[in-house]
Amino acid sequence: MFDEWRGFTAPTLAPEWHEKLTEMAAKSRADILRMTTVAGSGHPGGSMSSTEIFLTLYNLAKVDPTDPMRDDRDRIIVSHGHTSPGVYSALASAGFFDIGPALHGFRQGGSPFEGHVERCVPGVEWDTGNLGQGLSAGVGRAIYARLKQLDFHTYVVMGDGEQQKGQIGEARRHAFKYGLTNLTAIIDYNRLQISGDISEVMPQNLKAEWEADGWKVLEVDAHDLDLLYKAIREATTDSKNPVMILASSVMGKGVSFMENNEGFHGATVKPDKLGGALNELGNFPNNYEELVTRRKQGAPPHFDIKRPDRPKVDAGDPIYYGPDDKSDNRGAWGKALMSVADANMNRDGFTMAVFDCDLAGSVKTGEFGKKYPDNFFQFGIAEHGTAVAAGSLSAENAISIWAAFGAFGVAETYNQARLTDINDGNMKLFCTHSGVNVGEDGKTHQCIDYFGLLNSTYGWKVITPADPNQTDCIVRHVLATEGNFAVIMGRAVIPTVLDEDGKPFFGEGYEYRYGRMETIRKGETLALVAAGNMLPYAVEAWQKLADEGKRVTLVSVSDWCDLHADDLKMLAEHDEIVTLEDHNIKTGLGTAIGSAMFEAGLSAHLTKLGVDKYAGSGKPMELYQMLGIDPESVAKKVKSLL
Amino acid sequence: MFDEWRGFTAPTLAPEWHEKLTEMAAKSRADILRMTTVAGSGHPGGSMSSTEIFLTLYNLAKVDPTDPMRDDRDRIIVSHGHTSPGVYSALASAGFFDIGPALHGFRQGGSPFEGHVERCVPGVEWDTGNLGQGLSAGVGRAIYARLKQLDFHTYVVMGDGEQQKGQIGEARRHAFKYGLTNLTAIIDYNRLQISGDISEVMPQNLKAEWEADGWKVLEVDAHDLDLLYKAIREATTDSKNPVMILASSVMGKGVSFMENNEGFHGATVKPDKLGGALNELGNFPNNYEELVTRRKQGAPPHFDIKRPDRPKVDAGDPIYYGPDDKSDNRGAWGKALMSVADANMNRDGFTMAVFDCDLAGSVKTGEFGKKYPDNFFQFGIAEHGTAVAAGSLSAENAISIWAAFGAFGVAETYNQARLTDINDGNMKLFCTHSGVNVGEDGKTHQCIDYFGLLNSTYGWKVITPADPNQTDCIVRHVLATEGNFAVIMGRAVIPTVLDEDGKPFFGEGYEYRYGRMETIRKGETLALVAAGNMLPYAVEAWQKLADEGKRVTLVSVSDWCDLHADDLKMLAEHDEIVTLEDHNIKTGLGTAIGSAMFEAGLSAHLTKLGVDKYAGSGKPMELYQMLGIDPESVAKKVKSLL
Repeated sequence: MFDEWRGFTAPTLAPEWHEKLTEMAAKSRADILRMTTVAGSGHPGGSMSSTEIFLTLYNLAKVDPTDPMRDDRDRIIVSHGHTSPGVYSALASAGFFDIGPALHGFRQGGSPFEGHVERCVPGVEWDTGNLGQGLSAGVGRAIYARLKQLDFHTYVVMGDGEQQKGQIGEARRHAFKYGLTNLTAIIDYNRLQISGDISEVMPQNLKAEWEADGWKVLEVDAHDLDLLYKAIREATTDSKNPVMILASSVMGKGVSFMENNEGFHGATVKPDKLGGALNELGNFPNNYEELVTRRKQGAPPHFDIKRPDRPKVDAGDPIYYGPDDKSDNRGAWGKALMSVADANMNRDGFTMAVFDCDLAGSVKTGEFGKKYPDNFFQFGIAEHGTAVAAGSLSAENAISIWAAFGAFGVAETYNQARLTDINDGNMKLFCTHSGVNVGEDGKTHQCIDYFGLLNSTYGWKVITPADPNQTDCIVRHVLATEGNFAVIMGRAVIPTVLDEDGKPFFGEGYEYRYGRMETIRKGETLALVAAGNMLPYAVEAWQKLADEGKRVTLVSVSDWCDLHADDLKMLAEHDEIVTLEDHNIKTGLGTAIGSAMFEAGLSAHLTKLGVDKYAGSGKPMELYQMLGIDPESVAKKVKSLL
Repeated sequence: MFDEWRGFTAPTLAPEWHEKLTEMAAKSRADILRMTTVAGSGHPGGSMSSTEIFLTLYNLAKVDPTDPMRDDRDRIIVSHGHTSPGVYSALASAGFFDIGPALHGFRQGGSPFEGHVERCVPGVEWDTGNLGQGLSAGVGRAIYARLKQLDFHTYVVMGDGEQQKGQIGEARRHAFKYGLTNLTAIIDYNRLQISGDISEVMPQNLKAEWEADGWKVLEVDAHDLDLLYKAIREATTDSKNPVMILASSVMGKGVSFMENNEGFHGATVKPDKLGGALNELGNFPNNYEELVTRRKQGAPPHFDIKRPDRPKVDAGDPIYYGPDDKSDNRGAWGKALMSVADANMNRDGFTMAVFDCDLAGSVKTGEFGKKYPDNFFQFGIAEHGTAVAAGSLSAENAISIWAAFGAFGVAETYNQARLTDINDGNMKLFCTHSGVNVGEDGKTHQCIDYFGLLNSTYGWKVITPADPNQTDCIVRHVLATEGNFAVIMGRAVIPTVLDEDGKPFFGEGYEYRYGRMETIRKGETLALVAAGNMLPYAVEAWQKLADEGKRVTLVSVSDWCDLHADDLKMLAEHDEIVTLEDHNIKTGLGTAIGSAMFEAGLSAHLTKLGVDKYAGSGKPMELYQMLGIDPESVAKKVKSLL
């Protein structure tokens, strides 16, 4: 049970709560000033305009300071993450932790009290900082509530400046389409952003925009606790519309020289003015010197945060592809998805969602959508909103899947993926149209940078299955393993990779080991290293060479992010290494192998074959030929090196 | 002069034009079917719903088939680039080229007639394919018209499905804010997207959305030439509002089994149905076999496209920073910008624009904005729209600059940068808050992936100046040199780098040579290689070592994308190489050097110092210490290697 006053069940704000919140608001503003002035950095202005919103939510929504991660809690997402001082002080006032360490440790190296809100602080649901993403994160949580049949509400507090970001429009439409009445947006409408008055920086009719996208808009004074409470209550109980509360506020509220002064968006009150400001707010003692001294003693410790439970997944029974089967990896992915879904969907408490951006047929999630319509989310051509909603959902106890073309699932939404990673997400991204293997759709659609991009994060693992059999293994592994994974596939139909006895190499008996290369053929002198779905083409090249009596080693790499030292040593047993990849050669597997071998002090002569310019429109094999990475060209190149 | 019928000057469509366009429309649809059926791939459905729009624009707007690149032409941007068959046939009907090669060479490897429109075809202004970007590209061109005082109009033809992309909202607001009445959007409103009826895929009130953002909306039947003409004329001559024409259309128009069938969005008519379809369209001969035969003879040749003139820039006079000056690189960039602007702004025909996303003060473009308000575009917190508008403008005869934090200018908008690169742009991106050097704003704001990302394109050059003097040189070089450049700077104040005689190393007499390393101190055994603004910290480390009698080589690298063979050889003269960078160590300079040296067959022991995890909030030096890349830690590490 939550504390009985929580959940906005009372029709009006109880007088004792009005009194308490009023007191808290003054103290919260004092704390905001203390934090930011001591740190000499931070965003006091917006923190002070959002104060009553934060206090009302953290004190009166269904959250539990004694168990901040309980699954039935309301989710409070702060989209304008730079108002962290306001969030920390509101969380403290609601009993989540003691404010002390935040006052001296704000924005200090090693402290949990970072400049933008982060999940390392109890009560914070989602790291934000890059603006315009919070509503999409809220969409992900509201979907979780629906899927898990939990009666919680998601509140997203936003800035007004960030309304200029297009992604918010996507999120509004997602929420409207899916009738997410368990989602409420509250905009701190202080009318100022860094560059000044929002109506001058970017004229925008917020009410009309939100209403055009089907939201109900309530207008309220953000500093009037009674009206704010009523608006939040109305939004929380409205079962017809998602509601946006446009809460007019005053930047720097409570301190005369700060009010309506955009200079205090991102600048702090100087120490010599702090005392006066604290006085204005209600005779709060100026303990600046004490806090500075305490700060010098070192950053406060991190909280011991309970992570959310993560779903346990039955990986189901493998599907095998025989020597004569021809499939595309994306087809194998679609089948494996169905198999895993079927194995788990009826299990108690198991939750799974698949997101699509108008490509289900191509990315092979259509069958899932038909069989499990309640778990399938057609988010339209709106990739940024989708990436964040799926990322945010992945932070809950659910399997969150987005399938897309690589150009949309990686290149267009890299930053959203980065933020999911910073948030310690558990997202499963399946890109079915990657490399110039995409073919005729041409350069805008050919994702040849998936590794260069995702390997620039610390958490995402990029995996490129070699053939349908390995795809099946990898899909099951990824769905059953915690972490952010991107499985990158091509579009074309490819043959099953066979061993020298003509049996499927990745078929029965094969066990996928993340991070390890596979030697497909043993040879000497030269190792041909094929990345992902280039393997079937490499096998063809190998056979051409073998037919001429030239036997080289053929190696398959599916896991680019974590090259194993033993595998590198194995490669170094060859004089020549030729890497073959359907990726930009500048930032791809060849570069990763070269750099890793150099660091390991290994030597060999490396030739990188891959995509060395934007390719055009054409059949994959036409493009491979133009790039010199078709089997014929590869065999020729290898021969020239022997 | 343009042909006298061009420019929508006549109040109504002349009857002879009605007749001509009607004929052209039937033929255009026949050509669309021929192209896509022969290619066995492509998007006939939307091409056939956009037919009259394309024909009306290419035949009656102020474009010149005999001189497609003249500076005073109307710009016609096709945002739903997959309707390329419709575009090619409309361009051919207007005399831009003969349709023949497109009919057999559509989507063929090596052909200019790609699956999505590309600038290699005369009359195509901007490569699109990733949806939702065309309107922003149009904003860039409308701004060019204004800056250059050219009386041309920009038309952006869009799909209805792509309206789901948030970026379009950003573009609408940009256009409205700047009163871009020389910009018209035309939406092909066929109400179908891949997944079906747009109102089911994503409910959306287009009229209300565009009106909420200040646009005037005209509704018209896309296939009624007279009404379409009148609407375009009204939009073209409206001097009060940017206008959107919502043009209701029929997907697959003209062929009974294709009409209103979303299956034909991205699927072609099978060869055995082609004859019937051509018949329905007006007894057009079915030359399928002939085209197939012709296709087998090889792809049609590329056009000899005249590139737009690119601006000639006077690089101005260098500004020098002395031994005692302390500046941040971003400050030096701001000063160099002013210097170059002052040297050129009054030159005849010189055009320059600086875009900002609510960060002018921090990214040091504020002074420019004050002095040159007509050339300064405050685009608000809307980075995707800004990136594309600036990229699109850069394809004209103008200097197009966007200054931002790295997290927004690179990570958030990577795909927009990629598309500018595919478009052979000439954009100048200045990122002032990069690396963990950003400090207290924390991990969401610390761009530590700029190289991993931009080096995954083929054109973008990443340059990280070492100190204010080198920043000055590099800014001038970049502004005066053609191509897409990203200059990446930190936030913190740093000392001027000095030579051993105490004179500024990059001061008077220094000549910046793109792609070359600089040896700051000569030593032996070990080379410490500092990336960009890590150099001043490396100098400090070097001094600590020198004070202990240990003399190592100190090398500065500013240009990461093009490492010079001679410089790599110079590095290999050392047993030990230590790279120091404020970038993700997985995809940064150390990796690039290791991989390049491996490929060059060079050897040395490499130690990479850099960012190996998401850093937190804190002062840069606190973070450097936590990451082991502060001068003290670097000196210690180097010592352990000697």
